[in-house]
Amino acid sequence: RSQARRTKRARRPKPCSLREVELTVSELGLGYESDETLLFRYCSGKCMDHRRNYDITLERMRRTGFSKKGRKDKVSNGPCCRPVAYEEDMSFLDNNSRYHTIQEVSAQACGCV
Amino acid sequence: RSQARRTKRARRPKPCSLREVELTVSELGLGYESDETLLFRYCSGKCMDHRRNYDITLERMRRTGFSKKGRKDKVSNGPCCRPVAYEEDMSFLDNNSRYHTIQEVSAQACGCV
Repeated sequence: RSQARRTKRARRPKPCSLREVELTVSELGLGYESDETLLFRYCSGKCMDHRRNYDITLERMRRTGFSKKGRKDKVSNGPCCRPVAYEEDMSFLDNNSRYHTIQEVSAQACGCV
Repeated sequence: RSQARRTKRARRPKPCSLREVELTVSELGLGYESDETLLFRYCSGKCMDHRRNYDITLERMRRTGFSKKGRKDKVSNGPCCRPVAYEEDMSFLDNNSRYHTIQEVSAQACGCV
């Protein structure tokens, strides 16, 4: 009863960041059959704090302006949460014991670009 | 009748590039009232040729994998066609004859990031 009631706050969207998930090499979807597991790192989250005047104008154009101007251009919805660096090499043995090295699979750092 | 029939080809999606449209300053949606016009340059188009292993894996995860792994992460659908440089300054007079300078409104170059 002495516990203070917490004020309910609007949930803040998670900002763009590096996340990871454990996958088998087969689950990478690159055509290799291997039950070896690895950490796949990827970028996800919001980039709202990184909007520039460009993004404000583009959002307005996307909603109302392009059709008026006779354009059908699709444009990205604000800055993108994307890798700015990749892990160079990943090596594994496939289920036939062949050795492979694959590149630029996993992100190393993310940014709002 | 002598005109050769053209073979119908699949339409190739337009690659990521800089495009432009004439707007009034009011239409920029930045809160200024001015009938001065300017060229707003923006980035639009496809980045299919810029997909890496990362994007192939992520697309597969997006379609099937994330829910299996208990994730709800939203991730970008492949590389983004975004400005890699902005025009620094744009100046104009508003409808009350006040002078304004705004920054990073118009793209100067685009890339698949």
